[in-house]
Amino acid sequence: MTRFRLTIEYDGRPFVGWQRQASGASVQGAIEAAIHAVTGETVLVYGAGRTDAGVHARAMVAHVDVERDIAAYRLMAAINAKLPPAPVAITDCTVADPEFHARFDCTARSYQYRIINRRAPLTVDRGLAWRVPQPLDADAMHDAAQLLVGRHDFTTFRSAHCQSASPVKTLDHISVRRDGDAVLIETGARSFLHHQVRSMVGCLKLVGHGGWSAATLGAALAARNRAALGFNAPPDGLTFLTARYD
Amino acid sequence: MTRFRLTIEYDGRPFVGWQRQASGASVQGAIEAAIHAVTGETVLVYGAGRTDAGVHARAMVAHVDVERDIAAYRLMAAINAKLPPAPVAITDCTVADPEFHARFDCTARSYQYRIINRRAPLTVDRGLAWRVPQPLDADAMHDAAQLLVGRHDFTTFRSAHCQSASPVKTLDHISVRRDGDAVLIETGARSFLHHQVRSMVGCLKLVGHGGWSAATLGAALAARNRAALGFNAPPDGLTFLTARYD
Repeated sequence: MTRFRLTIEYDGRPFVGWQRQASGASVQGAIEAAIHAVTGETVLVYGAGRTDAGVHARAMVAHVDVERDIAAYRLMAAINAKLPPAPVAITDCTVADPEFHARFDCTARSYQYRIINRRAPLTVDRGLAWRVPQPLDADAMHDAAQLLVGRHDFTTFRSAHCQSASPVKTLDHISVRRDGDAVLIETGARSFLHHQVRSMVGCLKLVGHGGWSAATLGAALAARNRAALGFNAPPDGLTFLTARYD
Repeated sequence: MTRFRLTIEYDGRPFVGWQRQASGASVQGAIEAAIHAVTGETVLVYGAGRTDAGVHARAMVAHVDVERDIAAYRLMAAINAKLPPAPVAITDCTVADPEFHARFDCTARSYQYRIINRRAPLTVDRGLAWRVPQPLDADAMHDAAQLLVGRHDFTTFRSAHCQSASPVKTLDHISVRRDGDAVLIETGARSFLHHQVRSMVGCLKLVGHGGWSAATLGAALAARNRAALGFNAPPDGLTFLTARYD
């Protein structure tokens, strides 16, 4: 038996999310089905993060145990041959330590959130970005976002369905920058609460068009109360970027 | 009657191309239908370029005459409200000179072609890029591409359906650069022959993986013979970028 580490890219649009669910197609399920088609084995794929419906990934990391004796590059090619039409691809596959765990060993996760700041509807970016028609001040968003960096009780930014043992998390970094009509938000932490990134982005959007001041954002954080939340940004603009292991 | 100049973004995937055709939905037809829904008028929309099926646009320019007295920003908003679910958006709309012609007055057109250079299948970029598994040398492609710059008989790179009066065109510039696993080709000219960009990209791909030398590309151009063509790149990676007017 060999434990493999997989790097995975996917378009979240057609999926109920990363995790297998009775209600529809999942990314995890698509990869497990492809590995079954290749090896005949019923496997479990463990991911570094469990993204929601409509959320994308550039480099999700996962591990899986395979009985069959197969080289990593052959396994990758074989899975990639079975995955389409599901918009999921294995972009890297290596033999891992038998103790490696993609979720529990992960020491840093990063996400990007992409806003397209314009009045016109989206075309090629539909489902891949959040269109915000009000002009956004990316510098004001960046400055306010720095209030979120560090160790805080993020209850305000936590979904009712969050399974984390504690609402206290350490946000390592968050940045907001403009690139043409795109406003790009990148953030990293050891781990995030459920809906934390989308909740933070929803509030930063309010700061961006002047509906909230930075002080309002700080007060929302300090309230440690979901009722103080502005709102969640939609999943469309969110992409899981990287998982780091030490 | 007012002549309006429109800037248009679209995702070419669901369309038979820019031009209205009996065989299916076109970008031109989608915009004309939206304007009809807004004004009740049957209009003709003239574009700077006629892109093929599956080719995208970031900033196509077109003109249209509208009888109804309506401000440009209102017309834009009203068309944009009628266009979805068609992945077409008007990103700018201004009142033009009554003599302005989007096609005949255009003095420079530019295109981008995007290759994703990797073995893994595409996910979020499916239909928006050409996946090439063989490693490509973008610098070699760039150097060879300079042979195409200037005034040449581009018969080798011209489709059998091309309606241009002459195969002689002046290529103003072409560049090839790598950005991660993407290879980006940008090129500009007053006008292009039908399939010229896709034909040039198809040959540059051969140069990129060593199948062709730069000299082979030069000989293909000099042959002025369609039979000397390597092959056409698929439409997926091609985007009409800009149209310039003096």
